[in-house]
Amino acid sequence: MTSPWPPASREHPFGIHNLPYGVFTTTEDPSPRIGVAIGEHILDVSPVAQATDSDHTPLLDAPNLNPLMAAGRSVWTTVRAEITAWLTDADYRDIVTPHLIRSRNAVLRLPFEVADYVDFYSSEHHASNVGRIFRPDSRPLTPNWKHLPIAYHGRSGTVVVSGTDIVRPCGQRKAPADESPTYGPCLRLDIEAEVGFVVGTGTRLGDRVPLDGLRDHVFGMCLVNDWSARDIQAWESVPLGPFLGKSFATSVSPWIVPLDALAHAWVTPPARDVEPLPYLDDRDSEPAALDLDIEIRLNGHPISRPPFRTMYWTAAQQLAHLTVNGASLRTGDLYASGTVSGPEPDQRGALIELTWNGRDEIKLPDGSRRFFLEDGDEVAIGAYAPGPDGTRVGFGEVVGRVVPARV
Amino acid sequence: MTSPWPPASREHPFGIHNLPYGVFTTTEDPSPRIGVAIGEHILDVSPVAQATDSDHTPLLDAPNLNPLMAAGRSVWTTVRAEITAWLTDADYRDIVTPHLIRSRNAVLRLPFEVADYVDFYSSEHHASNVGRIFRPDSRPLTPNWKHLPIAYHGRSGTVVVSGTDIVRPCGQRKAPADESPTYGPCLRLDIEAEVGFVVGTGTRLGDRVPLDGLRDHVFGMCLVNDWSARDIQAWESVPLGPFLGKSFATSVSPWIVPLDALAHAWVTPPARDVEPLPYLDDRDSEPAALDLDIEIRLNGHPISRPPFRTMYWTAAQQLAHLTVNGASLRTGDLYASGTVSGPEPDQRGALIELTWNGRDEIKLPDGSRRFFLEDGDEVAIGAYAPGPDGTRVGFGEVVGRVVPARV
Repeated sequence: MTSPWPPASREHPFGIHNLPYGVFTTTEDPSPRIGVAIGEHILDVSPVAQATDSDHTPLLDAPNLNPLMAAGRSVWTTVRAEITAWLTDADYRDIVTPHLIRSRNAVLRLPFEVADYVDFYSSEHHASNVGRIFRPDSRPLTPNWKHLPIAYHGRSGTVVVSGTDIVRPCGQRKAPADESPTYGPCLRLDIEAEVGFVVGTGTRLGDRVPLDGLRDHVFGMCLVNDWSARDIQAWESVPLGPFLGKSFATSVSPWIVPLDALAHAWVTPPARDVEPLPYLDDRDSEPAALDLDIEIRLNGHPISRPPFRTMYWTAAQQLAHLTVNGASLRTGDLYASGTVSGPEPDQRGALIELTWNGRDEIKLPDGSRRFFLEDGDEVAIGAYAPGPDGTRVGFGEVVGRVVPARV
Repeated sequence: MTSPWPPASREHPFGIHNLPYGVFTTTEDPSPRIGVAIGEHILDVSPVAQATDSDHTPLLDAPNLNPLMAAGRSVWTTVRAEITAWLTDADYRDIVTPHLIRSRNAVLRLPFEVADYVDFYSSEHHASNVGRIFRPDSRPLTPNWKHLPIAYHGRSGTVVVSGTDIVRPCGQRKAPADESPTYGPCLRLDIEAEVGFVVGTGTRLGDRVPLDGLRDHVFGMCLVNDWSARDIQAWESVPLGPFLGKSFATSVSPWIVPLDALAHAWVTPPARDVEPLPYLDDRDSEPAALDLDIEIRLNGHPISRPPFRTMYWTAAQQLAHLTVNGASLRTGDLYASGTVSGPEPDQRGALIELTWNGRDEIKLPDGSRRFFLEDGDEVAIGAYAPGPDGTRVGFGEVVGRVVPARV
């Protein structure tokens, strides 16, 4: 066997300190199965679990992560320790090595069945920018914004894995100057760089998740590109919010980074200038923000670096809010942070902010310029969090290419 | 055997012309299984399919309707003909009779796994009333209302079957006069009487369903009570629409009435006073509205009779709009009509309209009065459509009782 051992250096963003979960297929074996990223390889975990007589074989021998996600925090921790041992203990080397597959030879699939998908709106910088663009004569933030993490339900059936082409959507759009709406391909196709939280264990209808319940319920994290048709969205959204402007596609990164890999990433959230109601009040809690550095690339060219640590509302607050009315959680629920925008112009997470709604151009190295996305454009969003001992925890990328509308 | 034969009179709303599908359990056999309502009985279809060597046994021997729903229109029609024969042909009597279970001895379950849930807003009378209540100084309808059927995504994980208790939700609410929001049980708990459409066969991402595609994709219909916490909703909804004000529970009736049972219910929709864009233009189509008479009862007392035929946007238009951006459909998608309100005050489908946002009381026969729902209140919504030869197609009821908040 020529595979390296251990299979990844400690500097690798998919080093032994990370071990994100995904689902993959290969040309030789097209059945979807669970893999764990390790360096430039994917460990096919099910055969290793079988060969080592693991108690958790039924959870790992599955076409998606849902059974493992449903098993709960203590099982997640045990399985992670087990996989860590497989990849570090020399006694396992002969068992493990045949099941290390080169990542470039695998196709990554949607790693879990999405139950409900909720999209938050929790960056103060993003919400303020959007407010300034659309309501220049009002205060940038609506009166409720600092009292609760605003959110809406998106379409879970159109959550797609990174690499899926994004068909430019058609629909109704009407500019303020137009007399009536017209139908056709979206003219203002945009991205939203977000971070997603994947629910493992659910709750019963009527129950609430307290602020300290994040670790009991959230299995891991991914990156999200919440593609947005700004012209369709603007015309349809009053009074019930975004619908077709968002529902055509939402891309997620293929690797689910376990919360246990992020122990070194917790930081204190920004100071809140409005006192939260008790169910959202985390001022006496452990640091609850996460220090992810995000990068957005358009056709390979970095156009923004949003800092996730600047989000006003945390994932724990979002989960507490989502369930405060007794709404139940299910395994596979996905909630996203909302567009991540930092305070600086080059930290904005959507083209509508980066170009100030089409006023300012983005120049690309090939000499072309962009206001919104053109057919053929490819957007990649990647992120890293701090790991132990100066390492980095990689999230991989969520990538999507825009293909022409089907008219 | 003492069961009647045929098992229902032609006058029964669950007569042989209806045959709605559901899922039930009994004390003797707690495994969920598919049943068809016939008069005061439920036909346990799986053992009959096995005994008659039906080709469709795998679709009927299932814990929910999803496999049958996924099979498509031609199978739906064949299976309906088969079940009709079982219940009318004397040759089948001895096979069928042992599998007729008295409805009162069965517990009805959620009949299908809900994929995505979308809620429309397609009654002009409802939208106008709400507009007059909340925006008295503006035009009642927003500028987009007559150009497109407005909708938003709801929470599919909290769609519950009729009979499930509704826990009064808690959350943030702020009256305009309040300085800041407070937390506590909803003070303005409301209903919305709606009609639901259940998707059988899905589409691929990027495809659109044309106006004449309803019959290919929609398996059947049910009744929906879209419980609404008006105070929570009012505070949270700007700018991204309703969230926790709706997501705590949405009740559906247990019987899915096949579209094939509604051949006599199609009527011409109201005249549209704005010319629809071509993908929504049904002016040259067959009549696309449905003539359902709905009745809302509060603690057994009828409080409203909304006429579904008055809806401005039809189910076919809603489906065409939902998919015009290429959003895919899945088996189990549920979309609801929006609150059904007719032009008359006693035809309104929500308490907020019936009491004009708490201004006018509803008097109940026990001498009590209501503005919004009180703990212990039970709401039942039923409906009938015209069937063949003067018969009625019954939808049964969606029932829910309000229980106190968990504080």
